[in-house]
Amino acid sequence: LNGNLQAGDYIGFTFFTGYMSMLAASIFFIVERGTVTDKWKTSLLISALITFIASVHYFYMRGVWLETGTSPTQFRYIDWTLTVPLMCIEYFLILKPAGAKGGMLVRLLAGSILMLVAGYIGEAITPENNVMWGIISTIGWAVIIYEIYLGEASKLAANSGNTAVIEGYKVMRWFTLVGWAIYPIGYCMLPGNILHGLVEGADFTKNSPVDLAYNIADAINKIGFGLVVYSIAKNATAAEQ
Amino acid sequence: LNGNLQAGDYIGFTFFTGYMSMLAASIFFIVERGTVTDKWKTSLLISALITFIASVHYFYMRGVWLETGTSPTQFRYIDWTLTVPLMCIEYFLILKPAGAKGGMLVRLLAGSILMLVAGYIGEAITPENNVMWGIISTIGWAVIIYEIYLGEASKLAANSGNTAVIEGYKVMRWFTLVGWAIYPIGYCMLPGNILHGLVEGADFTKNSPVDLAYNIADAINKIGFGLVVYSIAKNATAAEQ
Ligand SMILES: CC1=C(/C=C/C(C)=C/C=C/C(C)=C/C=O)C(C)(C)CCC1
Ligand SMILES: CC1=C(/C=C/C(C)=C/C=C/C(C)=C/C=O)C(C)(C)CCC1
Repeated sequence: LNGNLQAGDYIGFTFFTGYMSMLAASIFFIVERGTVTDKWKTSLLISALITFIASVHYFYMRGVWLETGTSPTQFRYIDWTLTVPLMCIEYFLILKPAGAKGGMLVRLLAGSILMLVAGYIGEAITPENNVMWGIISTIGWAVIIYEIYLGEASKLAANSGNTAVIEGYKVMRWFTLVGWAIYPIGYCMLPGNILHGLVEGADFTKNSPVDLAYNIADAINKIGFGLVVYSIAKNATAAEQ
Repeated sequence: LNGNLQAGDYIGFTFFTGYMSMLAASIFFIVERGTVTDKWKTSLLISALITFIASVHYFYMRGVWLETGTSPTQFRYIDWTLTVPLMCIEYFLILKPAGAKGGMLVRLLAGSILMLVAGYIGEAITPENNVMWGIISTIGWAVIIYEIYLGEASKLAANSGNTAVIEGYKVMRWFTLVGWAIYPIGYCMLPGNILHGLVEGADFTKNSPVDLAYNIADAINKIGFGLVVYSIAKNATAAEQ
């Protein structure tokens, strides 16, 4: 719990800012939940839970990083195992008034599980095959992208008849396409993977480019995504009044 | 609080996801409690207490597992001793408006106590007799199943005249029959018990199949069951408005 963060340890810096910004975001979403109409309250609570769960795991990751100087891969995946499904639930909740069925949620969750299990194997279990497992993981991500851009979810949103939802949904899925792309880019910098050349000289125990990418991506995709849900809820509340 | 979770320690992984998802679920139930009518608030609070108690014990169990690599049987039963009776109280609260009497609660509690005391003896005191104690424990579970499928509880639910309760009650008891069945299946994998052959080669200090079964079962039966109670409360609230 102390401050043995060295000057110039940029990755450690982002673990600290990560954990505190996630905690602040959770408080923000929980407290602002009181200002939106009832049907948006659950969505804001889920946003808060995503950042809260992340905050706790960033606290752990910060500790692992400071003590060992290695990537806290276990905690990274424990965190994603909980937060990615909650994001799928956010999609479901936003589209439920427009008629979303359980099947849509199941498809999003199935894609997430494939993405995360394959990613974990590639990062933690058989790193020598991380290219192959990265490709398999990407298939899981593609299942999600298909669902929200071309599948049932996209049709439901388009026909929801609620401007706040239609506009907000477009921003949400843009996060899932562009914001989430930062994760595989980070992964490709792992030793043995296709972008490793870019960071060849980097000392991974001091400056892990993979963790830097993941930390930036998490801030965008957890706090940023939550703010999008928040602004959909605020706009819809204003429109109803 | 440290990070000595090894890559590939799947059981450790589920202790971590268990403790954090239980905590997140508690926050969810407590906060969403504000959105249901008064008579449902107590039920949601009990759901929150069940997952909160579990969260604390998962935190301990995670520590025992990381430090010793053995099953945290003591904490497991400490947790169940508190959470199983709370689940019996959930049944009682749901059926109270339909006229549930104290006798029903007493029968459910008696079944729970028999189930847990016998299970503890079989797991922790005389493991060489775990088959016999497992059978005795199952009698306790059968008492509960009888009460909710054929006994007074089932009649009260059927005659409650409240659709949300009738439908929700069926889902609740299905959890108690099918979801709870995962526990004895895990127990039967203990050395000397009838399903141990399935996991013969497993190194119990790295991959305890019993703990894996219990952890999966707890997630389903504590968080899942709480969500069923939550959706009964939400549906009933909507119907009343
Ligand atoms: C595609 C792909 C990956 C994608 C990871 C993603 C997209 C993670 C998203 C996490 C989020 C959004 C957490 C938020 O709370 C991996 C596993 C790095 C492995 C390489 C291929
Ligand atoms: C039948 C049986 C068992 C049943 C255990 C159960 C059903 C535990 C339920 C715990 C719950 C639901 C906790 C939730 O909060 C034991 C003790 C493994 C011993 C073997 C026979």
